[in-house]
Amino acid sequence: MLGVATSKPFMSRIKQSFSHLGQQMEQAVKRGLDRHVRLGVTGISGAGKTAFITSLVNQILNGESQFLPAWQVLEQGRFLGAKLAPQPDLTLQPFDYSGAVGKLKQGHWPPSTHSISEIRLLLRYQPSKGLAGQFGQPITLTLDIIDYPGEWLLDLPLLGQEYAQWCAEVWPELNRGAWQEHSRSWCQKVRALEGNEDNSVINELASEYAELLKTLKQQYGASLLQPGRALLPGELAGAPALAWFPLPPSLLERLSEESPLRQTLSQRFSAYCDEVVEPFFRHYFAKLDRQVVLVDCLSALNHGRDQTEQLALTLSRLSHSFHYGPGSMLTRLFRPRIDKVLFAASKADHITADQQPALLQLMHSLLKESRRQPKYFGTEIETLVLSAINATEQAKVSSAQNQSVIKGRDLDGQWRVRYPGEVPRRLPDADFWQQQGFDFSGFMPPLWQGDEPLPQMRMDYAMQFLLGDKMR
Amino acid sequence: MLGVATSKPFMSRIKQSFSHLGQQMEQAVKRGLDRHVRLGVTGISGAGKTAFITSLVNQILNGESQFLPAWQVLEQGRFLGAKLAPQPDLTLQPFDYSGAVGKLKQGHWPPSTHSISEIRLLLRYQPSKGLAGQFGQPITLTLDIIDYPGEWLLDLPLLGQEYAQWCAEVWPELNRGAWQEHSRSWCQKVRALEGNEDNSVINELASEYAELLKTLKQQYGASLLQPGRALLPGELAGAPALAWFPLPPSLLERLSEESPLRQTLSQRFSAYCDEVVEPFFRHYFAKLDRQVVLVDCLSALNHGRDQTEQLALTLSRLSHSFHYGPGSMLTRLFRPRIDKVLFAASKADHITADQQPALLQLMHSLLKESRRQPKYFGTEIETLVLSAINATEQAKVSSAQNQSVIKGRDLDGQWRVRYPGEVPRRLPDADFWQQQGFDFSGFMPPLWQGDEPLPQMRMDYAMQFLLGDKMR
Repeated sequence: MLGVATSKPFMSRIKQSFSHLGQQMEQAVKRGLDRHVRLGVTGISGAGKTAFITSLVNQILNGESQFLPAWQVLEQGRFLGAKLAPQPDLTLQPFDYSGAVGKLKQGHWPPSTHSISEIRLLLRYQPSKGLAGQFGQPITLTLDIIDYPGEWLLDLPLLGQEYAQWCAEVWPELNRGAWQEHSRSWCQKVRALEGNEDNSVINELASEYAELLKTLKQQYGASLLQPGRALLPGELAGAPALAWFPLPPSLLERLSEESPLRQTLSQRFSAYCDEVVEPFFRHYFAKLDRQVVLVDCLSALNHGRDQTEQLALTLSRLSHSFHYGPGSMLTRLFRPRIDKVLFAASKADHITADQQPALLQLMHSLLKESRRQPKYFGTEIETLVLSAINATEQAKVSSAQNQSVIKGRDLDGQWRVRYPGEVPRRLPDADFWQQQGFDFSGFMPPLWQGDEPLPQMRMDYAMQFLLGDKMR
Repeated sequence: MLGVATSKPFMSRIKQSFSHLGQQMEQAVKRGLDRHVRLGVTGISGAGKTAFITSLVNQILNGESQFLPAWQVLEQGRFLGAKLAPQPDLTLQPFDYSGAVGKLKQGHWPPSTHSISEIRLLLRYQPSKGLAGQFGQPITLTLDIIDYPGEWLLDLPLLGQEYAQWCAEVWPELNRGAWQEHSRSWCQKVRALEGNEDNSVINELASEYAELLKTLKQQYGASLLQPGRALLPGELAGAPALAWFPLPPSLLERLSEESPLRQTLSQRFSAYCDEVVEPFFRHYFAKLDRQVVLVDCLSALNHGRDQTEQLALTLSRLSHSFHYGPGSMLTRLFRPRIDKVLFAASKADHITADQQPALLQLMHSLLKESRRQPKYFGTEIETLVLSAINATEQAKVSSAQNQSVIKGRDLDGQWRVRYPGEVPRRLPDADFWQQQGFDFSGFMPPLWQGDEPLPQMRMDYAMQFLLGDKMR
């Protein structure tokens, strides 16, 4: 729209004077602005954040183009090398790359990270040939990788909700069939509340609720766990801002707005949003340029129907977090600038190669709302099936069907051959769960001594999507 | 200075118009502004913060004028009662008053608090008679008590220091005679540094330094422990902003400003000041109206010369924190508004009554710089010797000298009679330490069932100093 009201002769003069400088300078200015990428990495319950970041750093530091054909800067011979640099935010824990590499060399998976951590890499590369057919000066791209718990990202939608809305959404999730065994007695206590309970009763129920969330996560792989900080309270341990829980919608209807119970829970919900969620997003999320969300679909399928359906709900909520157009709540709050989001189904080495397309289709189906508008308000959303660190090899069993299998070291250290099963191409219906059995169990890490890049699958696609346009 | 350039007739008119409104309204307006007191309570290593706050709340809720004669609002019959109210800042842990009372009833001291906590009380009182000789309407004073570790307050002077200045001050403290046994090997490693060490060496030494600080605190009662967060790192665990330590001044002189070691430590020191210390003071300290600093002089004397001398240095640093005149660093940073500071020597029940005046004189002597200007830039500094919860009774032993003793239950539960020794009236010299023996050991809490106010000593003086002027 700019320039519509401007006289043509003036615009021509401007254009002429710029044409002298040529496109090269324009490109150089663009590149100058593009020399820094802040990449967020998060994951839904055990999706393998630490493995992903360790492999990403390892591929960047040691990558060979034969293993990373889709990463163009490397494939085109323009990648000059990379090194680790001190992290910029000294108040964050450093992501312990060398510790993770050490653990892998000893044959153990690196311990999962808590809270938030950061690592910085400097990537040196030659820009593509300009119009004159010559390479420009080498450029250094600074890559900051910021790792934070998926539960914190799941708290983001709270900012757009009232307490009662949140209850309506979360209460049915607590009562899913598979985990009623653990949630029933807590839910009964809450159903029996009268509305005039004092803080000691509320605090006790909140503390039991936090325990329930931990159990649902550990025993059932539940993914929608709110407040997200209930699992890792840190300095908020014991604070009222963390001591709230959902009420059943039927009870909320009966309670007046003035009931002490409802008021206390609403106030604490709001305090959590204002004092915990909002500052996190303002300080960290709003400064990210790119985001990776790792999703362990296979474990959810392994756990069963409730976990898989909850994962679908979780992903739907998450994908909304990246839909920030003009005037949206997120835009008003933080002016986020994330322009690319990668939803990656992790641990693809845990299924046979022929099932990987089905896993991708399942991801598409779970994220269908986001996929409908792939460039929604300028944010490009991509899905990918990958394995950050291959723990298995593909193999064939010479039986009648010459069946595909995977071969890896079981958690007891023994090599085993396994056919994990078929991956459904969409969210399965009730019939499916009665017929199908899955067997996506864990494996030990690969035998790896650090002299080669970590074995992986499609990390190059992830790298091209996340960094390719910044290294042209 | 205001008004110097204003014409006199104008000022007179203003004064006249105000005189019509009378002093009563002026007082009412003042009272309106005075209906909220935010009281900070902190202490130096085990000084009894939890016992002090528990007793203060207990005296306010249940106090009887016979036990609190110096608290005028009660003594004059104008105190109408008090109750607990929900804390205003939901992100802070609540101070667990009922838990502390429960522990005391069971015969245990309440566990010490970590981090920061808060409790709110509403105090109802009748204002003093106005000019017309009548009581006004009852007024509610809101009292927020904010409890935080003394180590955090000791970090405040860092904001006015460079890294090298801090080293010069702190290095000799690490090498005090009594605790060289523990600090020697770490100090030797640091003395041997060359200046080009990388982060892994720095991080390792920082982690050993944090362990050393913990040992010095626990085994020797050391009080000057910096960075204060090293003892309770919380979410900063592992962050570079917490991974720094002092270098010996002789090494600093040899190192160039560009040495990686010096640069890294300086940067981390600055990050700690900017990202940890400053935000804490901006968020909490700057909003306090009054401050209590509890000091356990007796344990320091018990530990010996080094601990007592370090306590003197600690108090000197602390008292500077309250000296904020126009243009001072603190005023520029936060506009603090603390107008009264109470330095209270705690556990006065652990010595015989005849030694209490000596303890007060010792406190005066340790704080002599502050005492020299008792109303330094509007901040009134008071010293007091008190016992928040009496664990002993005074007694006499009918020996030749009819000696004063204290009687209390030892930590094994047995009643014992003890003469703890004489308290020096000023910082003792070398001779003193060779001659004198102290025996200020701990006692069990009093046998108390909660039906009376907690037994205490001079809490009423503390209450009058901290709240008296706000309840006139």
